[in-house]
Amino acid sequence: VPSTQLTLVQIDNYGPWTVTPEPRREPDLQALQARLYGDLAQGVGAHDGYAFYDRFDNMVAVTNGIDREDHRRLQTSLNNRYPVSVSLGVASAETPVAALSTAGQRLRAAGGAQDADRRAVLRGDPDPTADAVTMAHFDVVDVTGKYTDELNPFDTSLAVESGYLELARRMRRENDSLAFFVGGDNVVAVCPALADDVVERTIGRVQDAAGVEFQVGIGRGATAVEAGMAAKHALEDCRHNGTRVERVAAACD
Amino acid sequence: VPSTQLTLVQIDNYGPWTVTPEPRREPDLQALQARLYGDLAQGVGAHDGYAFYDRFDNMVAVTNGIDREDHRRLQTSLNNRYPVSVSLGVASAETPVAALSTAGQRLRAAGGAQDADRRAVLRGDPDPTADAVTMAHFDVVDVTGKYTDELNPFDTSLAVESGYLELARRMRRENDSLAFFVGGDNVVAVCPALADDVVERTIGRVQDAAGVEFQVGIGRGATAVEAGMAAKHALEDCRHNGTRVERVAAACD
Amino acid sequence: VPSTQLTLVQIDNYGPWTVTPEPRREPDLQALQARLYGDLAQGVGAHDGYAFYDRFDNMVAVTNGIDREDHRRLQTSLNNRYPVSVSLGVASAETPVAALSTAGQRLRAAGGAQDADRRAVLRGDPDPTADAVTMAHFDVVDVTGKYTDELNPFDTSLAVESGYLELARRMRRENDSLAFFVGGDNVVAVCPALADDVVERTIGRVQDAAGVEFQVGIGRGATAVEAGMAAKHALEDCRHNGTRVERVAAACD
Amino acid sequence: VPSTQLTLVQIDNYGPWTVTPEPRREPDLQALQARLYGDLAQGVGAHDGYAFYDRFDNMVAVTNGIDREDHRRLQTSLNNRYPVSVSLGVASAETPVAALSTAGQRLRAAGGAQDADRRAVLRGDPDPTADAVTMAHFDVVDVTGKYTDELNPFDTSLAVESGYLELARRMRRENDSLAFFVGGDNVVAVCPALADDVVERTIGRVQDAAGVEFQVGIGRGATAVEAGMAAKHALEDCRHNGTRVERVAAACD
Repeated sequence: VPSTQLTLVQIDNYGPWTVTPEPRREPDLQALQARLYGDLAQGVGAHDGYAFYDRFDNMVAVTNGIDREDHRRLQTSLNNRYPVSVSLGVASAETPVAALSTAGQRLRAAGGAQDADRRAVLRGDPDPTADAVTMAHFDVVDVTGKYTDELNPFDTSLAVESGYLELARRMRRENDSLAFFVGGDNVVAVCPALADDVVERTIGRVQDAAGVEFQVGIGRGATAVEAGMAAKHALEDCRHNGTRVERVAAACD
Repeated sequence: VPSTQLTLVQIDNYGPWTVTPEPRREPDLQALQARLYGDLAQGVGAHDGYAFYDRFDNMVAVTNGIDREDHRRLQTSLNNRYPVSVSLGVASAETPVAALSTAGQRLRAAGGAQDADRRAVLRGDPDPTADAVTMAHFDVVDVTGKYTDELNPFDTSLAVESGYLELARRMRRENDSLAFFVGGDNVVAVCPALADDVVERTIGRVQDAAGVEFQVGIGRGATAVEAGMAAKHALEDCRHNGTRVERVAAACD
Repeated sequence: VPSTQLTLVQIDNYGPWTVTPEPRREPDLQALQARLYGDLAQGVGAHDGYAFYDRFDNMVAVTNGIDREDHRRLQTSLNNRYPVSVSLGVASAETPVAALSTAGQRLRAAGGAQDADRRAVLRGDPDPTADAVTMAHFDVVDVTGKYTDELNPFDTSLAVESGYLELARRMRRENDSLAFFVGGDNVVAVCPALADDVVERTIGRVQDAAGVEFQVGIGRGATAVEAGMAAKHALEDCRHNGTRVERVAAACD
Repeated sequence: VPSTQLTLVQIDNYGPWTVTPEPRREPDLQALQARLYGDLAQGVGAHDGYAFYDRFDNMVAVTNGIDREDHRRLQTSLNNRYPVSVSLGVASAETPVAALSTAGQRLRAAGGAQDADRRAVLRGDPDPTADAVTMAHFDVVDVTGKYTDELNPFDTSLAVESGYLELARRMRRENDSLAFFVGGDNVVAVCPALADDVVERTIGRVQDAAGVEFQVGIGRGATAVEAGMAAKHALEDCRHNGTRVERVAAACD
């Protein structure tokens, strides 16, 4: 019973390209990476998917409902407009961790990320039966009040980052979920079907270990945007109700 | 003796905007943030500065040699082209940590990041005497060989992230430096003048604590790009020589 | 029997915005307009549509096969990421001229382009029966050989522009078609079903009147991209065969 | 006595690239061209220059005050981030027509636009003595009132285009100026020093020949933005005063 469909998006042979024939200007690389990710976010968003920048040369998209032709068109569009090309690995599974693992294996079977012979491949078949995905949208409780006493904005960033890393580790290990930092004090996780008390327990452990308290909205839907928007509305409920976990039922539940 | 000039770039009142009148589609927010950062990187890059996305709603730029009129023009350009505005705080100091602290205080004096009355302010005066900056460009030793055995690409990301966080904490605490993840397995730090053995000691401690081994190139120059390019060439030397710390002397040394 | 579906995309109240509170920097406006158009091209391209920049504050897209939800999502995406909003008018008809006329009327019924009260409207219903579109892709015969003797690149531009304007006028009047300049020496027209000899006659008249000789590939398909790609392949045939009009049959013919 | 400095920006070997190995998707090419132009506008705008898209594969920038290092940095930035490269030709002269002619000759001496061997060249030396430029910003008098009776938005575009072409031809022939369409009903011309009555006479002839009545603001300054902003303010004066030609004196006059 596959539910989550993920697409691993890797820039082909990117590391070597950045230093050939000599190291390229960092501001150009930063702008290139940000733009490419922004286009990926828009491109999968046009079909109600989510994309995460992850390590920029290795990005992850939630692509439930996005078929092979859509994947190919998006890949062609990126490859037509950038000096580097991307390869895609697609897989679906009951858990996001399993889906990404398979997507990675499929892509690796066509060659490693730094294999000069692998270029613009698309491996794995989108699965129309992967028709339900769970998204969890977290943020830090009272981030302004708790962290603005810090003199240095960088220390706020380190605190948020610590909280994120602890949350990402635990969501992965305890809940087979993939959690990504999405800016500000926000973290979005793509999850298998999850009970509220399980997520609440993870949040508590993160607070104990890293001292950062998260609240979370959970949504489920046929696509990442449907699930993700439900999650965002549920998170608004946390803010208004002072609760730590809320869930918004979507039409498909 | 100020040496590093930093500019703190904050999106004004961003959190509330993202949920007004109701939560906005996440793919649009992701594309917006990535584009805005990409434009900032290009904009300061046009004057040989570096920009880091940090938390996206709070970005940090190394702006040695960039004057007040350049700052204003860049700010106007962003504010003319996005649905949100940015405010800038500028400061220079002997250490990056001190510069960012002052920049943050200056901006806060004009209003908090979520203060609806603060819009498009520019505080702090660029300092033409801030004419030398040190940049350190790190990457993970043999990241492909050590982490490709992992079945899951996400675990590689968690490992890199762990290494980054440990490095960032130590560079900040031990060396008054600000270290930012810049994609792949790369980390760039803006530093005060630093001895090689100090950096090597920090690298060793990061390896002990997080199990991730970094190598680093260090460069110094009149601008971020001059210093950063020297650092990138020095990092190439590490790769070729099998060393952990290299330094390239720039013209201004 | 509707065949072409067009969407008129207007920036709401753009003229006044560009001079409020005082005239904005032209380079920012130019970048804004170019980016917004680029995003529109990508956004409709994600669903196999074409977009033309026309006057930038008034753009035209060929949207066969793109439904109401796709339109709304694209509109929301643009409006979430730009400081200005766009309104859309959609219509289908047997000829592109008639479709655009109806799309314009629908939009105007909701308010003029400079009506401060009209914001982000979407008028007209996409029509799933509009399932065939004809695209014609023109370029200038031997543009390099004929125009490189000109000392000044601007004179080449004026010559191409003269040819384009004569072609656009005649395609509109003689063939109920909308022709747009798309860069270089290329013109793309969206057309009703057209016989080859009709197009050849128009090309001849353009050459007589403006002294610019065009060749053209014609394609027909279920979507703009399907028809447009067929047209581009047909134009390649002109180049190879030395002919003035070629046509590539698409699957749907 | 050079006054205007222009830079001709050509995409190297673009035509062949667009059809290799087979014709590329038009929406991707449109987005690519628009983005590249947007980046050029921002890049020269960062140094107070103006850029015009012209034919997109051949763009023109007014670059008074922009030195060789700035040119090289901008060129590198574009070439690092796009799948195509650009070459630059720079020249200054008393008139824009002469400057562009020389810039074109310099570039052509390094190879034609479709010469596969010419890649990323920069020819011609920026001239620090080119320290004054005149910009004229035109728009159509009462465009809304006169053209909204047209049923079809395309006919408005054809009317504006006709007016633009007649204006561009006359400005070039009668006034040694280069006029570019910049969206809406706006035209911007880069000019030598010009008397008001000369411009007024040209406007009258355009109205006689094409039936389109323009008004114009004229500005002069050390850079394109300084002159162009003065011109935009002067055009506001036309709108408020009901006059056809206004001029705003800039500091350098």
